[in-house]
Amino acid sequence: MNRIAVRAAIHVAAVFAIYLSVAMLIPAAVDLFYGNDDWRSFAFTAMFMGALALAVALATQGHKPPANTRFGFLLVNFLWLTLAIAGAVPFMTSSLQLSVTDAFFESVSGITTTGSTVINGLDNAPPGVLIWRSLLNFMGGLGVIALGLFLLPFLNIGGVSYFKIESSDIEERPFERFQTFAVSLIGIYTALVTACAIAYAAAGMEAFDAINHAMSTLATGGMATSDTSFIRYAGQPAILWVGTIFMFVGSLPFSIMILFAVRGRLDALRDPQIRVFAGYCIVFAVSVAVYLSLRTGMPFLTALTHTAFNFMSVISTTGFASDDYTLWGPFAVACIFVATFMGGCSGSTTGGIKAYRFLILFELLANGLRRLIYPNSVTPVRYGDRIVDADMQRAVVLFIASFFVLWAIGTILMAATGLDLVTSMTGVLTALTNVGPGLGPIIGPVGNFSSLPDAAKWISSAAMLLGRLEILAVLVVFTPTFWGR
Amino acid sequence: MNRIAVRAAIHVAAVFAIYLSVAMLIPAAVDLFYGNDDWRSFAFTAMFMGALALAVALATQGHKPPANTRFGFLLVNFLWLTLAIAGAVPFMTSSLQLSVTDAFFESVSGITTTGSTVINGLDNAPPGVLIWRSLLNFMGGLGVIALGLFLLPFLNIGGVSYFKIESSDIEERPFERFQTFAVSLIGIYTALVTACAIAYAAAGMEAFDAINHAMSTLATGGMATSDTSFIRYAGQPAILWVGTIFMFVGSLPFSIMILFAVRGRLDALRDPQIRVFAGYCIVFAVSVAVYLSLRTGMPFLTALTHTAFNFMSVISTTGFASDDYTLWGPFAVACIFVATFMGGCSGSTTGGIKAYRFLILFELLANGLRRLIYPNSVTPVRYGDRIVDADMQRAVVLFIASFFVLWAIGTILMAATGLDLVTSMTGVLTALTNVGPGLGPIIGPVGNFSSLPDAAKWISSAAMLLGRLEILAVLVVFTPTFWGR
Repeated sequence: MNRIAVRAAIHVAAVFAIYLSVAMLIPAAVDLFYGNDDWRSFAFTAMFMGALALAVALATQGHKPPANTRFGFLLVNFLWLTLAIAGAVPFMTSSLQLSVTDAFFESVSGITTTGSTVINGLDNAPPGVLIWRSLLNFMGGLGVIALGLFLLPFLNIGGVSYFKIESSDIEERPFERFQTFAVSLIGIYTALVTACAIAYAAAGMEAFDAINHAMSTLATGGMATSDTSFIRYAGQPAILWVGTIFMFVGSLPFSIMILFAVRGRLDALRDPQIRVFAGYCIVFAVSVAVYLSLRTGMPFLTALTHTAFNFMSVISTTGFASDDYTLWGPFAVACIFVATFMGGCSGSTTGGIKAYRFLILFELLANGLRRLIYPNSVTPVRYGDRIVDADMQRAVVLFIASFFVLWAIGTILMAATGLDLVTSMTGVLTALTNVGPGLGPIIGPVGNFSSLPDAAKWISSAAMLLGRLEILAVLVVFTPTFWGR
Repeated sequence: MNRIAVRAAIHVAAVFAIYLSVAMLIPAAVDLFYGNDDWRSFAFTAMFMGALALAVALATQGHKPPANTRFGFLLVNFLWLTLAIAGAVPFMTSSLQLSVTDAFFESVSGITTTGSTVINGLDNAPPGVLIWRSLLNFMGGLGVIALGLFLLPFLNIGGVSYFKIESSDIEERPFERFQTFAVSLIGIYTALVTACAIAYAAAGMEAFDAINHAMSTLATGGMATSDTSFIRYAGQPAILWVGTIFMFVGSLPFSIMILFAVRGRLDALRDPQIRVFAGYCIVFAVSVAVYLSLRTGMPFLTALTHTAFNFMSVISTTGFASDDYTLWGPFAVACIFVATFMGGCSGSTTGGIKAYRFLILFELLANGLRRLIYPNSVTPVRYGDRIVDADMQRAVVLFIASFFVLWAIGTILMAATGLDLVTSMTGVLTALTNVGPGLGPIIGPVGNFSSLPDAAKWISSAAMLLGRLEILAVLVVFTPTFWGR
């Protein structure tokens, strides 16, 4: 790794930090509008951070970034870490005056679209802080879609990209194509958030909450404006179904919508991961709804409204809750636990293992079992009508393997801070998969992360970043090979 | 799959059932010696089962088994299922009069060397029943070593076999070689059990308990003669260290000892999985001993005696306990939880993921990360000084993937029977890895499986069998390909 690459990566990160500083003017404006004094700290932080980022960007400019994978990995890590740090500053300067640990945790949770929070008393928190949390979700969601669609597939990890596959398009006029795609991504994403906000408002949500929740819904982030998340809307099924639908949309590969917008084509709808994802969402929601209505006598449709919302929330790695689902009985809790691993589609804002990896894993398993019987048979591993090459197979397997290894290590580390097994285990899991809530008495759907020891918050923060960058993109930077020669 | 293969598999299973019936004369003799009336039911069951097995063996003889992998898989499944069913009968006919569910669970737990029990009041149980449980461990251990050394590697799953690698030996005079290996395996195994029994007795254990525990120690089974396992020896460090040492020996690849006995060679000692296995045993035992002595003020050596014993017990998938380690604090409990996955070496009596798989997984991970940086580099995946071929890589990955999928499904099924999350999760885990105890209030080290719903016992039994046969050997029989053409 040479110095030019590091400088170039710092430069790009600094440019994005400028954008983030500009974005801080939004909470400043909101606080000003609501007459909250916090607007000064947001405005001041925006100027200070903006100036600093500008200085760094100017000092590091003029180096053409090397076009290799190492630069790609370095950039991704720099970018998310920089934005997490920059995003944390307003939480310290605002009237909430979070500690460094808490501010970093909250910012990482926002930018990685996890949605876990260390803030008690969200219902009375300054509107600027609330909108900043939602904005971090919004921007983090946009960032991760771009990452998953445009960058990770070229680094041979984390995705099924229709843009990589359609290499003929890219080879023609690569940058113009990318620009078209990027512009249409931002357009579609913003349009969906707007539609979601309108739908929430139409279903009875207050405007401010609707805007906040729309941003954290599409980003499958989960930052809410109340300590009890969506429980205050528990009696408003229309709001819950709006949430369910837009969380589902946020879990789909954005390439579908981009290709439709740019080309008017819907081929990408045939992507088999969509069927797998929709399949497991329906199985969980329906079977737990049956269980719940048998167990409690709740009408089936009421039960389904809640199971659909909460399972969609967990599977899409959003993390909203419309009820304390830890009280739904052991079968439901075990399903929630397993659902925390699942995730949505590649090229979406979701975290977790994701549907396409499950699909490829099952294909590998079926293929491997066949080979045990016919050792000399050579049948390719398929993903829909395409063949999964060795790089892709390796990436899937390595992701899952390192996921479980990190989960085990993280659980032990969390427990070393004094937390019980269920909190440790589900705390690391929910961070690695960017879901949000865990299980157990502290970090469950009606709890939060505020009372955790500082060490546990740093472990969680690291796990959220690892999970968001598909683990391997972080691990690779810690290998000697990366920095060698 | 043709009928000849099925008949041949039934024949072999029936022959082994004859051996098992003969073995039932041992508890009969023990009960007779101690003047317990149960000797009649053991003797009667032995004769009845023996006659039945003989009839089946005669009816199915004369078909030369096909020399293909399908027959191998079929045989392995038939064998373990037959022995589990046959082994269950004495539990029903004895004075304990276990139900079909309980008897099958206990027998599966014995023959798979898991060591979970549904019997309350072991301290006053008839000696014949106690020795039968230990004998099932003993025979199951012998069976699984033979499986791991001689069969699974040829079926391309589950092992690093020095006999497969040294194919020149086998090609010369295959059957004579195998016979030599098999005879020396039985000799060494029996000698080790005898040595262990003598050591236990010398350390202060009563003769009957020493013999029982020696069988379940070497088999890393964990069937004890008391409801509280080894807690009654908590004040006798000599007994605990004897247990620790012999559980360690039982976790080593038996090929080492066989090759030493047959050839006087110790090359196999260089097998890298031994270092990995010893490494993680030491790390767990020492770090938790430090934690425990800091936490409770217990002298370090006393703490180490207990952590060494209990971690060796869990890692070697034995399942003895010298203390209620669920009270050792969250860090210790999280370590025990993670240790439940680990396992010992291939070609041993241990279950779990096992050291060689971790080693190959880390090699795959390192290799994969290197390839992300240099996509065109082709460096082979190594195991020690050997290259891990594609079949072996696939087997490792498939095992781990199907392990976690089965764990998730099993957890949901267990929870559906009404058990809490920790019991469901660790109950399935401890069954899949053939450890024995789980965590939580019911199936922890001082609890047992008696109060579980019948459905949960059947799920556990299935998981124990799956785990014992390295999962894939069972799954393959349930594919359409297996029965096709």
